[in-house]
Amino acid sequence: MPQGQPLTVPEDGLSTRQRRNRPLVMVHTGDGKGKSTAAFGVALRGWNQGWRIGVFQFVKSAKWRIGEQTVLERLGELHRETGEGGPVEWHKMGSGWSWRRKQGEESDHAEAAREGWEEIRRRLAAETHDLYVLDEFTYPLAWGWVDVDEVVSTLRDRPGRQHVVITGRRADPRLLEAADLVTEMSKVKHPMDAGQKGQRGIEW
Amino acid sequence: MPQGQPLTVPEDGLSTRQRRNRPLVMVHTGDGKGKSTAAFGVALRGWNQGWRIGVFQFVKSAKWRIGEQTVLERLGELHRETGEGGPVEWHKMGSGWSWRRKQGEESDHAEAAREGWEEIRRRLAAETHDLYVLDEFTYPLAWGWVDVDEVVSTLRDRPGRQHVVITGRRADPRLLEAADLVTEMSKVKHPMDAGQKGQRGIEW
Repeated sequence: MPQGQPLTVPEDGLSTRQRRNRPLVMVHTGDGKGKSTAAFGVALRGWNQGWRIGVFQFVKSAKWRIGEQTVLERLGELHRETGEGGPVEWHKMGSGWSWRRKQGEESDHAEAAREGWEEIRRRLAAETHDLYVLDEFTYPLAWGWVDVDEVVSTLRDRPGRQHVVITGRRADPRLLEAADLVTEMSKVKHPMDAGQKGQRGIEW
Repeated sequence: MPQGQPLTVPEDGLSTRQRRNRPLVMVHTGDGKGKSTAAFGVALRGWNQGWRIGVFQFVKSAKWRIGEQTVLERLGELHRETGEGGPVEWHKMGSGWSWRRKQGEESDHAEAAREGWEEIRRRLAAETHDLYVLDEFTYPLAWGWVDVDEVVSTLRDRPGRQHVVITGRRADPRLLEAADLVTEMSKVKHPMDAGQKGQRGIEW
């Protein structure tokens, strides 16, 4: 077998180039650290390719601003100033989705999660971003706030060349089935087990 | 038990604040994707805290420039221009360590790896960086090029408040024992299994 060839070649009617450039759905799941960190690392790499980056944080605690947000938004600013990289949008559920006129008015997290997903659907249909990071999106799926089958079919039928990274524990088997790339981050050892609390720069 | 308390409090004579701020050795291992990506994500976060970042790539293929290098070096430049974040140094074994006068002269990878480690020892002793990313450093350890016990004792006795992230498969059990935080990235599913090759923005 020639070097650099994949082990199997699927009968999907695609050329190698078409298959190589096929947009991916990636899932980072498991109980370990690094799921979101690696997703933001993919965003960093995508920014460098000039991709239009959209981050959507599906967590209550997204009221906090994490370091990655500051840096990725700064890179988005750099794009506007110098044309380097790509544009960056960062939206958070916790403080009210930033595309809404009035922020901070959601009292119902389930509704806020559904609203976030609806906006992502609209953006996927409009091909707004080249990379979507749906951070901790597995939770609204696990809690039944957003319909897994609808997410799977929306991802499957999305137009163009849009990559999607979804992070969080307890990823639904249907989501894993639909994903092209799944990585499980497992905790082998964590300093909190040895009585150490989270710290600046490491946890946020 | 009050909320926010760790499950165990070690008898290490440290206050909670001292323990919280204890510098960490982190290992990202396993066969899955995301080990290096998550490490560069930690560097991104550290940069935002003003940390002095040092990245050391222990791989032959480090002749290539990956997107993270471009972006992190750009952030280092931004630090020099505006004072934002912290300084960034990125050194690669593949093209000859960048602190050497003459590059590209190593023919012996084992020697190059040892030389890289010696420089890191000097920097740890001098407290040169706040965060060291030793990317794919598990391989020179696994191949016996760099002595694991020496690495473990150097890490254990390092002065000040220096964080270290080590990535790569087949991490030595002594290294895992010495680490504060170990995450295993396991491959659940990868597009190469379905005949898709690596692509720009995702793999590099």
